Amino acid sequence: MISMPHTNTAESLATRAATIISRCRELARITDTPGETTRLYLSPAARDAHTLLTWWIRQANLTARTDDAGNIRATRLSPQDDAPTFVLFSHIDTVTNAGAFDGPLGVLLALAAIEELGATTLPFHIELIAFAEEEGVRFGFPFLSSLATTGQLTPDHLARTDANGITLAEAIRNFGLDPDRIYLTCPLSPNTFGALEVHIEQGPVLDKSDTPLAVVEAIVGQSRLELTFEGHANHAGTTPMSLRHDALAAAAQWIVEVERYASNYTQLLATVGRLSTEPGAINVIPGTVRTSLDIRHPKDESRHAAIAHLLTKAEAAGALRGVRVRATVQSEQRAVPMDRALTLKLHQAAERAGFDAQPLFSGAGHDAMILAPIVPTTMLFLRSPNGLSHHPDETVRPEDVEAALATVLNLLLHLHPHK
Amino acid sequence: MISMPHTNTAESLATRAATIISRCRELARITDTPGETTRLYLSPAARDAHTLLTWWIRQANLTARTDDAGNIRATRLSPQDDAPTFVLFSHIDTVTNAGAFDGPLGVLLALAAIEELGATTLPFHIELIAFAEEEGVRFGFPFLSSLATTGQLTPDHLARTDANGITLAEAIRNFGLDPDRIYLTCPLSPNTFGALEVHIEQGPVLDKSDTPLAVVEAIVGQSRLELTFEGHANHAGTTPMSLRHDALAAAAQWIVEVERYASNYTQLLATVGRLSTEPGAINVIPGTVRTSLDIRHPKDESRHAAIAHLLTKAEAAGALRGVRVRATVQSEQRAVPMDRALTLKLHQAAERAGFDAQPLFSGAGHDAMILAPIVPTTMLFLRSPNGLSHHPDETVRPEDVEAALATVLNLLLHLHPHK
Repeated sequence: MISMPHTNTAESLATRAATIISRCRELARITDTPGETTRLYLSPAARDAHTLLTWWIRQANLTARTDDAGNIRATRLSPQDDAPTFVLFSHIDTVTNAGAFDGPLGVLLALAAIEELGATTLPFHIELIAFAEEEGVRFGFPFLSSLATTGQLTPDHLARTDANGITLAEAIRNFGLDPDRIYLTCPLSPNTFGALEVHIEQGPVLDKSDTPLAVVEAIVGQSRLELTFEGHANHAGTTPMSLRHDALAAAAQWIVEVERYASNYTQLLATVGRLSTEPGAINVIPGTVRTSLDIRHPKDESRHAAIAHLLTKAEAAGALRGVRVRATVQSEQRAVPMDRALTLKLHQAAERAGFDAQPLFSGAGHDAMILAPIVPTTMLFLRSPNGLSHHPDETVRPEDVEAALATVLNLLLHLHPHK
Repeated sequence: MISMPHTNTAESLATRAATIISRCRELARITDTPGETTRLYLSPAARDAHTLLTWWIRQANLTARTDDAGNIRATRLSPQDDAPTFVLFSHIDTVTNAGAFDGPLGVLLALAAIEELGATTLPFHIELIAFAEEEGVRFGFPFLSSLATTGQLTPDHLARTDANGITLAEAIRNFGLDPDRIYLTCPLSPNTFGALEVHIEQGPVLDKSDTPLAVVEAIVGQSRLELTFEGHANHAGTTPMSLRHDALAAAAQWIVEVERYASNYTQLLATVGRLSTEPGAINVIPGTVRTSLDIRHPKDESRHAAIAHLLTKAEAAGALRGVRVRATVQSEQRAVPMDRALTLKLHQAAERAGFDAQPLFSGAGHDAMILAPIVPTTMLFLRSPNGLSHHPDETVRPEDVEAALATVLNLLLHLHPHK
C-alpha cells in the first residue's frame, strides 16, 4: 500500500488528491440553504454531512463515533496498545454562503492520508477529528466544539442561544447528544503527543509567491478597538478652514498613518474597516467620527507597542485640529505560537516530499489555537488561488492538495512520539 | 426725528436696536412646532407671523400688502412721485428648530431704519420686502419667493410638493393667494435702483476678528461632488499590507489633501462631510468608500481649478493602492458678485457711522443671490457670536445691531439714485 517516500507514488497521490477535492465538493452540496453552501453547527445539514463523512470513514475500515459536542472522531490504531495518539483535525461547519474547502479539506486530506497509510505500522495511534463548530455562525461564538475537547466549554457557552433562541445545550440534545456527557466523551486522549491541522490559507500570500504550502509558525494575536474623534459640526460654507474642528480630517490623517506604520513592519496588520461621520451631511463639517481598528501581530508585545504608537498618532492628528480622541479596546486575543519542534518536523516533511513550504503566520483564527496550549500543535496551509475564502468561488489546486498529502504522509512516517 | 450722523443719537439707536431684538424674539415664539422655532413657508405659523409683522408695519405708518408668493411688502414713499425705489429685504421663514435672527433681523432692522427716518425727505422710495421663503425646507428648494419677484418662478417650481404631497401652487391657494397672479403682484418695481439685505454672518469670522460688521463682496460659487473609491474587500487578518486595495486608505489620503489644499488658499472652502465604507466590518478591508465633496470659492474659475486638482489627487491616492476613483458632480452654483458701487457705498456708510466693516465672502446662499443679477444688490453681515446659526442659541449683540442700524441709516441718507 504505502510506498512513500521511496518509490514513485505520484499517480496514486494524484488520484487521492482528486478524491479529496471531489469529496469536498460533494460535501459542499449538503447545505441548510438551497443553492449555496451553508452548514451550521448541529443543523439538519450537519447531520447529513455526518452521515456521509461517517460512510467515507467506514470505507477506510475505521469506526466513527460522534462525541457529545457533535464532533466526528475515528481512530486508526497502532499495533502497540499503549501507543500515544497523534491527532489530525479540521472542521466541517461553514460560514454562510461558503466555499467547499475551508475546513472539509483538512478532514478529508487526513482521511486520505490514513487510507494511503494502509497497513503500514506506526508507533502511534492516529485520531481523526472532524470538529463540528469552528466558524461561530450559529451561536455567535467560534471554536465551541474544540473548546469541548480541551475541557474549556463552560455553562456560559452552553447557555448561548442561536437566532431562534435555542441554547447550545438544547441544540446538542435536539441532535440526540447529551451536553452533560461532554466532559466524558469529548476530551482528547490523555496520551496525545501532537496534533496537525491542514487548512487553506484564506489569504493571497502563497498565491502571490507561487508557493504551494506554508507551515504556520503562530496564529497572530489580535486587538479590536473603537476610536471616536470628537470635533465640532459647523457650516461648510461659513466656517473658514483655519477655524474648523474637522473630525473626519483628523481621522483621515490617522488612517493614512495606520497604513503607513503597518506597511513598515512585515508582520503587522492594521485595518480600519468601519467609519461613520456625524451629522453626515454634504454641507456640514463632520463633528464626530467613529472608526474601528483591527490590529494583529504574531508577538503580543509588538501588537501592544503598535497600539500605543497608533493611539499617540490619533491624538496628535486630533490635537492639530482641536479634535478630542477617545479609544476603547473591544476585544483582545493573545498570539498562539505553534509547537516549535513539531513545526520544524512539518517543515522537514515538506522538504523531503520535495515541496517549498513557506513559514507563515496565520492572521485568522483556527481550532489549532484552542488545541495548542494543551497539546503540541502545528498547521499546514495550502495556497488559496486568488486569496479567495469564505466565498463560493473558493478553490484549491489539485497539485497543491497532492503536495499537502505527501507532506502529511512524510510527517507521519517519520514521526516518533518520544523524539 | 432722524439726527444721523451729525448729532448724538446713541440713546435713540440703542433703544431701536433693543426693539429690533425683542421683536425678533417675539416673532420666534410663532412656530409650527411648539417648543421650538420652526416657521415654514405658507404654514399656519407663517400666517400668524404675517399678522404680527403687518401690525408693526402699520405702527410705522406704512401700508403692508401680501404679494401672491406670500411676501409682505411695504413702501415708504418719496415726495417725488416718479422717484426710483431702493429695496431693503430679508426673509421671515426659518429652518427646523431655528434661532430668532436668521432672516427676521434683516426685516425688522429695515423697519427700524424706516421708523428712524421719520419725516426725512429722501430722493427715492424705500420698499421693505419680507420674503416668505428662503430656507427651502417645505418644498426642498430654496429662494422660491425671491425667484417670484425676479420673474424666475417656473411652473416646475409651482409643481413641487411638500412632505404631504401638497404642491406649491396649492399651498399658495390654501393661503388665500393666487399663483396665476404671481407675474402681476410679485415683480420688483421696474425703477428699482438698488437693494440691501442685512443678515447675520452665520459663521465665526467676525466673532474671531472681534469686528461687528462685514460688507459682503460676493456670494461664493459652490460645487457638490460624490466620489467613489473602488478597491477590494479582503480579510483583515490574512491580507498583507502590500497586497491590499484599501478604498478607505485611499480616501483618507485624499481627505487630508483636500484639507491641506484648501487651507493654502484663503478664499477656498472644501469639505468632506459624508463618508461610508463597505462592507463596513471591523475585520474586513473596505472595498468601497463613498464620499462627498463640497467646494466653494468666490471665483468660479478658482473653484473649477480646485476641483480639477483635487480629482487628480484622488486618482493619485487610488492609483497607489489599485483603487479606482469615480467622481460625479451633483450640483453646481456660480458665484454671485455683489454690486461694486453699492458695496463701496455700504462700506463708506459703515465708516461714517464709526464702525469697522470687514470685506467678506458669503459662503452660504441668500436671497441677495437671486436679486443681484436683476438689480444692484449688496449685503451687510452682523457678527454671529460663537459663529452659531440654524440653532436655538443663535444670537446677536445689541451693540452690533445698533452699528448695523447706524450703517443702514448712513447709507440711506447719502444715497443718490443717479450717482
